[in-house]
Amino acid sequence: MASLRIDGHDLSQLKTWVEPYEVDACMVSSTAVITPEMREQIAATGIQRICYLDHTTPLPIRNSYSTPETLGTDRLAASVGAYFLAAELKKKHVPVLVIDLGTALTFDLVTAEGEYLGGNISPGIQMRLKALHQFTARLPKVNPEGPLPALGNSTETAIRCGVIHGIQREIEGAIRQFSVNYPQLLVFLTGGDTLDFAKPLKKHIFADKFLVAKGLNIILMHNS
Amino acid sequence: MASLRIDGHDLSQLKTWVEPYEVDACMVSSTAVITPEMREQIAATGIQRICYLDHTTPLPIRNSYSTPETLGTDRLAASVGAYFLAAELKKKHVPVLVIDLGTALTFDLVTAEGEYLGGNISPGIQMRLKALHQFTARLPKVNPEGPLPALGNSTETAIRCGVIHGIQREIEGAIRQFSVNYPQLLVFLTGGDTLDFAKPLKKHIFADKFLVAKGLNIILMHNS
Repeated sequence: MASLRIDGHDLSQLKTWVEPYEVDACMVSSTAVITPEMREQIAATGIQRICYLDHTTPLPIRNSYSTPETLGTDRLAASVGAYFLAAELKKKHVPVLVIDLGTALTFDLVTAEGEYLGGNISPGIQMRLKALHQFTARLPKVNPEGPLPALGNSTETAIRCGVIHGIQREIEGAIRQFSVNYPQLLVFLTGGDTLDFAKPLKKHIFADKFLVAKGLNIILMHNS
Repeated sequence: MASLRIDGHDLSQLKTWVEPYEVDACMVSSTAVITPEMREQIAATGIQRICYLDHTTPLPIRNSYSTPETLGTDRLAASVGAYFLAAELKKKHVPVLVIDLGTALTFDLVTAEGEYLGGNISPGIQMRLKALHQFTARLPKVNPEGPLPALGNSTETAIRCGVIHGIQREIEGAIRQFSVNYPQLLVFLTGGDTLDFAKPLKKHIFADKFLVAKGLNIILMHNS
């Protein structure tokens, strides 16, 4: 699997990047608005079959979200990816919890029967750090990298510890709770930010930063 | 104990509010900047002894924060309040964890020996809801009141559940972890926002919305 990550919204070089791979088909997913200019740049690649993932795209899982048109397509794609990766690992379908730690921290659950039930959204690491600075009079913008004791003993460490330990406890608590309700649960962790989980928890979590891409590929196959 | 809560920074009516109580002394604590105008309005009350709490104020606990000048005085006051309330309850000094859920979610720890060790700061409920809306392209501003299932099945419920369950798991995880390190720990919960904790946890938490005020009073006595 080849991967190329481009930050920002500039797709002017897309044709050049794609050319060496002789791409037949592609699946486009975006959490932001896809502008007419971006559509033109994607079309200019010459890829024959271009699918835009939205709430009308046929899926290999059942989407029980009550407002499917507002469900981020990345959350849906990651859920599809996790559901089929879990089936490969376990030789049967099991419930999966997808935790995506990026701009936001999202939790999404698919049952063993392939029903996407829904999920939770809360702020990611950078968003929490930014909010503490921008929405208060006196707190500084803190870098997520640095000393991480159990208790901060300066404003900087108190904020870093509060945000990082807080997210970690939020994730651990969610895994613990959903594992009670779904004993066969497999947990997948994806997204731009990673955390160091304690060993006992770590062995129950599959980290896969290409979960969205793998899910998009499965959805593309499903639509061939 | 009488209490009067005024939102905002307008102290023009302070003299009128205070008059009926024949106040001898007061302790002023603020997480924002106290302007010269506010100082004048406080002085105009005619209260004889007015103390401004800052990092130079003598305290009945030892402050081991490495940057005491940046430690919010409300966190310090709540810690003092909890430490002495716990001693009243237990007839001896025990370690206390103060959890303040307001604009920010703060955790502060005082040992049985009366040493303020430090704490954690992360965003409060409203701050998380506001950040998800303001720092993303597509997420709405969600009201914290409303249905709260385990899994959101619409953008609105996914955000509300993500933020509220997340904060709850963060608090539960912190209590669990600090209780391991400090077996005699008493937990005090204060601040403007409240949560419904599960019963097993609830019985270990003392909720007291006047913790900061009680701590300020103890500091004032200490300085008499």
